Amino acid sequence: MKPNFSLRLRVFNLNCWGLPYVSKHRSDRMKRLGDFLNMESFDLALLEEVWSEQDFQCLKEKLSFTYPAAHYFRSGIIGSGLCVFSKHPIQEIIQHVYTLNGYPYMIHHGDWFCGKAVGLLVFHLSGLVLNAYVTHLHAEYSRQKDIYLAHRVAQAWELAQFIHHTSKKADVVLLCGDLNMHPKDLGCCLLREWTGLHDAYLETQDFKGFEEGYTMVPENHYVSQKDLEPFPCGIRIDYVLYKAVSGFCISCKSLKSTAGHGPYNGTPLSDHEALMATLCVRHSPLQQNPPAGRLPLISVLREAWTELGLGIAQARWWAAFAGNVIGVGLLLLVLLCFLVAEERAREVAILLWTPNVGLVLGAGAVYLFHTQEARGLCRVQTELQHVLGREREAQDLSSEPQLALLLGQEGDRTE
Amino acid sequence: MKPNFSLRLRVFNLNCWGLPYVSKHRSDRMKRLGDFLNMESFDLALLEEVWSEQDFQCLKEKLSFTYPAAHYFRSGIIGSGLCVFSKHPIQEIIQHVYTLNGYPYMIHHGDWFCGKAVGLLVFHLSGLVLNAYVTHLHAEYSRQKDIYLAHRVAQAWELAQFIHHTSKKADVVLLCGDLNMHPKDLGCCLLREWTGLHDAYLETQDFKGFEEGYTMVPENHYVSQKDLEPFPCGIRIDYVLYKAVSGFCISCKSLKSTAGHGPYNGTPLSDHEALMATLCVRHSPLQQNPPAGRLPLISVLREAWTELGLGIAQARWWAAFAGNVIGVGLLLLVLLCFLVAEERAREVAILLWTPNVGLVLGAGAVYLFHTQEARGLCRVQTELQHVLGREREAQDLSSEPQLALLLGQEGDRTE
Repeated sequence: MKPNFSLRLRVFNLNCWGLPYVSKHRSDRMKRLGDFLNMESFDLALLEEVWSEQDFQCLKEKLSFTYPAAHYFRSGIIGSGLCVFSKHPIQEIIQHVYTLNGYPYMIHHGDWFCGKAVGLLVFHLSGLVLNAYVTHLHAEYSRQKDIYLAHRVAQAWELAQFIHHTSKKADVVLLCGDLNMHPKDLGCCLLREWTGLHDAYLETQDFKGFEEGYTMVPENHYVSQKDLEPFPCGIRIDYVLYKAVSGFCISCKSLKSTAGHGPYNGTPLSDHEALMATLCVRHSPLQQNPPAGRLPLISVLREAWTELGLGIAQARWWAAFAGNVIGVGLLLLVLLCFLVAEERAREVAILLWTPNVGLVLGAGAVYLFHTQEARGLCRVQTELQHVLGREREAQDLSSEPQLALLLGQEGDRTE
Repeated sequence: MKPNFSLRLRVFNLNCWGLPYVSKHRSDRMKRLGDFLNMESFDLALLEEVWSEQDFQCLKEKLSFTYPAAHYFRSGIIGSGLCVFSKHPIQEIIQHVYTLNGYPYMIHHGDWFCGKAVGLLVFHLSGLVLNAYVTHLHAEYSRQKDIYLAHRVAQAWELAQFIHHTSKKADVVLLCGDLNMHPKDLGCCLLREWTGLHDAYLETQDFKGFEEGYTMVPENHYVSQKDLEPFPCGIRIDYVLYKAVSGFCISCKSLKSTAGHGPYNGTPLSDHEALMATLCVRHSPLQQNPPAGRLPLISVLREAWTELGLGIAQARWWAAFAGNVIGVGLLLLVLLCFLVAEERAREVAILLWTPNVGLVLGAGAVYLFHTQEARGLCRVQTELQHVLGREREAQDLSSEPQLALLLGQEGDRTE
């Protein structure tokens, strides 16, 4: 590769809001999205919430000339909703489905049925290895009482770990997606600190779009105004993040987002705003890795550790509650058998038998689900604990009294 | 690193058969296993089927002096059963839980509840990066009618992909575990061909143990003789696999397995035989990667593709069947409502109402499960298809008429 090597990468990201029967004007929006992508001819278009595989197939057909490579990430019952269209051939594909993703009985939220995941595509561009990741994390339905917080933090950690372990030989790492987290949220900090990814919005000198880079704004008439009530100006939950790993540097020349309407005004393409980034990759003298034992990482790891602890306590409470319901249900069944045998209130007993069996089975399912949830959260907590231990060793404690104080309580907890 | 660098690695692997209340003499066997590991002082001990976390904690305490680092991989409802004890500090940890792992209603088989997984531990040994993987795949309960074949092939592919994508910067890769596959089984070939891992049993010049390297033998009195009926001499399903990635070469100096009894005779440690390998890693001139478009890989990818297709058809059949049951159940519910409203056979109608609701809900769960199963298998099939396409491109078709013939049918299927 020549020393003056330089590569320009134009990237598009959009949460398409493509829920069949629910999302308004879906087919019209998909059609316009296809037209727009064809016209703009990005290097890479990463989409979320393309829930219908038929929509993907239509887009694939429409875009086949401009974007010869395409991939849909299948997972869960409904799907991951993730897909990618690329001008360049895809060398390798892998995906990771998040272990924890909400609760099956929260049917009206539906995240559990989706199989939320992160997809990785490896590209070779002029001798450079690009790892492009696309993801969509669990939605936040209430910021005041967010029952999914522990799951989202666990997902952010799994995402960070997946990127960390699969990108070791990549020259450039790109992550696009709907993280369902505000920029300063715990999961977002955890992801950035552990992977070293940079936020295109914060890095670029040339941003065109809403103030603060908001990607869900009340000006977009598809957005539920009620959901945005606590944030009257909007929220930023969609991201373009990147880093160059070694021998290269990457910068964001420009970042553009739609502003509550379509890219050329008119009706919006989705309830989210689209992000369009122009990235520039250049050769660079070997960069120093960030020093081991970084204070912000340690602090965010500790915070995540605590948050997961609360999630574990909650999961264990539900498992114990379900266990008690099973106990009471079984006692009732014995009582009903007794009533039938004694020929007392026989009809009522027979009538109550089946609902009671249903109760025991239902409570059994809840027990198993929350046991598995607690185990999944414990697993993430153990991994965080291990990293905390390693960071602590890497840090020269004696020269950092502040850090020693911060880590004091962690010492006997780590493995 | 010096050019005459050489590293000796002593590795232990055992499926411990540690099911509480079920496995015979569990605590005694665990105690003896701990004594043996302490005495032998391996570099790395990788264990499967340590289902009780308490057993892990006891071992950890007992081995803390000889093996200061230890990790238990938590997952699923029961756990993954996987754990590791190491003389050397663990640098990094990650795990991947297999997407497909049997059926929840096959309670007597129980694999679904385990959350079978692959765990990765990264070690830095004298400047060398070692990625050590431990895994346990879905059991094979009947070789004649193996309803889990598609799941096991999918697991083997996920395992191979996980190793392929996470080991790109490793110098040495080691995989130990109970693969529940015979050496020539499809999943085993797929794993070896896609990762390039070598089988310690086939590579070593110095093997001590049963003929053919069997790791489940009728001589072990814990083994169910009925299960081994089709294989009166034994089966080989536990493996030590390895490869050196670049600049290094690795060889297996010796491989030893127990022979139906404990390491020093006496009662066996488990119903599986333990494997003890001595590996030697040396500096080596840069090795050539295997040529792209390899014929055995292409052939095994095609075979796996076909097998997964059968699995998908089966999963879709079950989903359709459950869909029909839901339809009939809903019709019955309408009929029962009608009977109650008309005051005809009211008691019978009320009595049948709840079981019928149960039937609809149960069929709904079966429908959702098999829909997700079909999607998971489709996802693996698409990944295989993509690799097949890439391999086809890499191969010079004109110079390989045999390959052209083999790939003829694949052409229009690949993305």
